[in-house]
Parts: sequence; C-alpha cells; structure tokens
Amino acid sequence: MELYCFGESVNAYKCALALALTGTPWLPRYVDFFNGETRTAEFREVNEMGEVPVLVDGEAVLTQSGAILLHIAARTGALGGATLKARNEVVRWLLWDNHKLSTQIGTVRFLMNFAPVDKRPEGVVPFLQGRLKASYAVLDAHLARRDWMVGDGVTIADLSCCGYLYYPEPFGFDRKDWPHIDAWLDRIAALPGWKHPYDLMPGNPSDRA
Amino acid sequence: MELYCFGESVNAYKCALALALTGTPWLPRYVDFFNGETRTAEFREVNEMGEVPVLVDGEAVLTQSGAILLHIAARTGALGGATLKARNEVVRWLLWDNHKLSTQIGTVRFLMNFAPVDKRPEGVVPFLQGRLKASYAVLDAHLARRDWMVGDGVTIADLSCCGYLYYPEPFGFDRKDWPHIDAWLDRIAALPGWKHPYDLMPGNPSDRA
Repeated sequence: MELYCFGESVNAYKCALALALTGTPWLPRYVDFFNGETRTAEFREVNEMGEVPVLVDGEAVLTQSGAILLHIAARTGALGGATLKARNEVVRWLLWDNHKLSTQIGTVRFLMNFAPVDKRPEGVVPFLQGRLKASYAVLDAHLARRDWMVGDGVTIADLSCCGYLYYPEPFGFDRKDWPHIDAWLDRIAALPGWKHPYDLMPGNPSDRA
Repeated sequence: MELYCFGESVNAYKCALALALTGTPWLPRYVDFFNGETRTAEFREVNEMGEVPVLVDGEAVLTQSGAILLHIAARTGALGGATLKARNEVVRWLLWDNHKLSTQIGTVRFLMNFAPVDKRPEGVVPFLQGRLKASYAVLDAHLARRDWMVGDGVTIADLSCCGYLYYPEPFGFDRKDWPHIDAWLDRIAALPGWKHPYDLMPGNPSDRA
C-alpha cells in the first residue's frame, strides 16, 4: 500500500499508525503541503477534496482518515472491533473524532504554529479551545472507566482520537490536566510497532526552520 | 425505532430524513436542547457525548448521525450504496461532511442565530465562513459531474451533506452562488417522503419567539 502523507499531517499519522501496528507493508508518498501541493490540479485529480491522506491499495484509492482506517481494519482483520456492537461503537467514535475533536484541534494547531503571522485572526483560537475543553472532558470521562475506547483492546477508534495528542506543537492541550487521557496515551505508545509521527512519516517542522 | 431529536438539530434531521425516505416507522423523542436537556446527567446516561441525535432500535442505541445513517442503511438495505466501492465512497463523504462541512456550519449557524448576543465572539464567524467557502466549492465541483454524491441514486452521503442547506436561518450560504448544489437540493426535495426539517421533527424557533 502507498500512503500520501507528510509528518505534520495528523490524519495521515492515524493511518500510518494503523499500518504500523498491523505490520502491513506500506510506502510513504511525501506530499509537499507547505508549498501548496494539495492545491494543485494534479493533486485534485488524486483527491478532489484536496486533502492528505490518500491510501492507494491496488485498484482502491481511499481518502478521509476514518474511511482509510475502516479499510485497513477490514483488510487486516485487526483493530476493527470484535462484534457488531463493537464495530458500531468504533464508527461512532471515528465520527465523533472527526466532528468534535480533530477538526477543531487541526484549526487551532494550524493557526498557532503554521499559519503566517498576519493570517491568525483574533478570537478564533480561544473560542475553539473552549469548545475543545468540552471534547477533552468527554474523552477523559470515557477513559476513566476503561483502558481502550471500545472493548478490551486497541482499535482504530483509539488511533483516530489519539492522533493529535502526540504532536509537540502547542495547541492548548496539557496531558497533565487529563489523567485518563494521559494514561491511555502511554498505553497506546507502549504497543509494539508504535512510533512518534515524525519518526513514522517523512517531513517535519525542522525542514522549514 | 425512536429518534431523540428536535427541529433545529441538523444531525437529527439527516437521520429523520433517512427514516422518512426508507418508509421506516419511527417516533420522535423531543429533546429540550435550548433549556439544557443535553447537559443533564440523565441525558449523559443515554449519550455520554451529550449530543442529539440518538437512535434506539431495540437493544441497539446509536449516536453520531453518520453511525445512525449507516445503521439505517444496513437495516433497510437502502441508501447505502450498491457496491463495495460505492459503500466506501459513502463512508468517505459522511466523514468529509462531519470534518469539513457540518461541523463548521453548525458553529456559524449557532453563533449567528441561537447564541446569546453577548456570547458571539468577534472574528469566529467570518473565519469559519471563509473555510466553508472551500467546502462549498468541493461539493459544487463534485455535483457538477453527477446527480448524486455517490453512484446513480440517492444515498446517505446525500442526506448527510444536504442537511444544513434546507434550514432557513442564515449562516452565509446562498444557493444561488452554487448552481450544482442548488439543483441537487431540488432533486433531493423532490424524492417521495422528503420533508422540511420543521415539518419532520418537533420544535422550531417559533416556539421560543
């Protein structure tokens, strides 16, 4: 399989982590996001949504990290949930992550770390950080009662929700404030095959320093 | 089936529309969102995410509109996509809607119409409206080449992406600016069983006027 990715892309990291944890052979295809590659006509031919990641698996070309995670789980028979009820729960948390967690963190992290300084509108970061506190609280409360998001072991629901929380760039999240999230991140990072995003995919902020 | 819902909830509307278009018998269970019901301990017992919609189907209790839509498609054998490739495409657009369209519209519409006037932070609405223009452009370009989001007929991908676009409250979207979206909304509204959100679910802004 080939994964269009770059180190800073959390949504690519979620997918790369699923490939790594399942021992699936894959190759990274580096996308030069910060020089505008995702806005080119060539890239739009690959993904009309103009986004990384893209997974190429033979004839299948998939985009959206949640869809790619479901595909990897189906192809490998791992990480997808053991029962129909568990698989429904996995889908529910993938959607929650896309709706309430990753989207908001993505905007805040971009504005605080990567956007040109004159394109950082006032008011947006604190507003979204306020909304994110409610999301961290939902996640922390969920993990207070269990080791993994769904069932008794790691699933793609964990990989989707954890993605941003390993990155070093500040966006207003401090692991110490959320003890159950903190312990869960340690559990995931102890899994065989786990790697930090900047060790798993090509490209990182030091390239542009 | 029973759907926890209220008229203003777009994510509930998406699910109610799927029930209506498939001719599935269902009952609404009105949630008094504007008086804080989703923040109560009782409601958190039903959905720890503190969100509407919730679908109760016998023993199954589902939340997140995308997960509910997939469940309705699986239960009815309709609206889910005819092939594996189509089903993957449906999932991809459900996730895109949650990631790039509905989340942002939800915040903008709430701030412009429902939030207390002293809780409408400056800068947020224009910033998110700018991001939404890119999403409307992706949707309009996709629909320039086809009648439906995936394949040759309506699927839950259409129902997820169209939800907000029938509501009367302003959030900066004008159908006239996006001719392919405009024609697609007419196609969906012409389907047997289609209803406007305030005709399909209990509660609407005039209750609070």
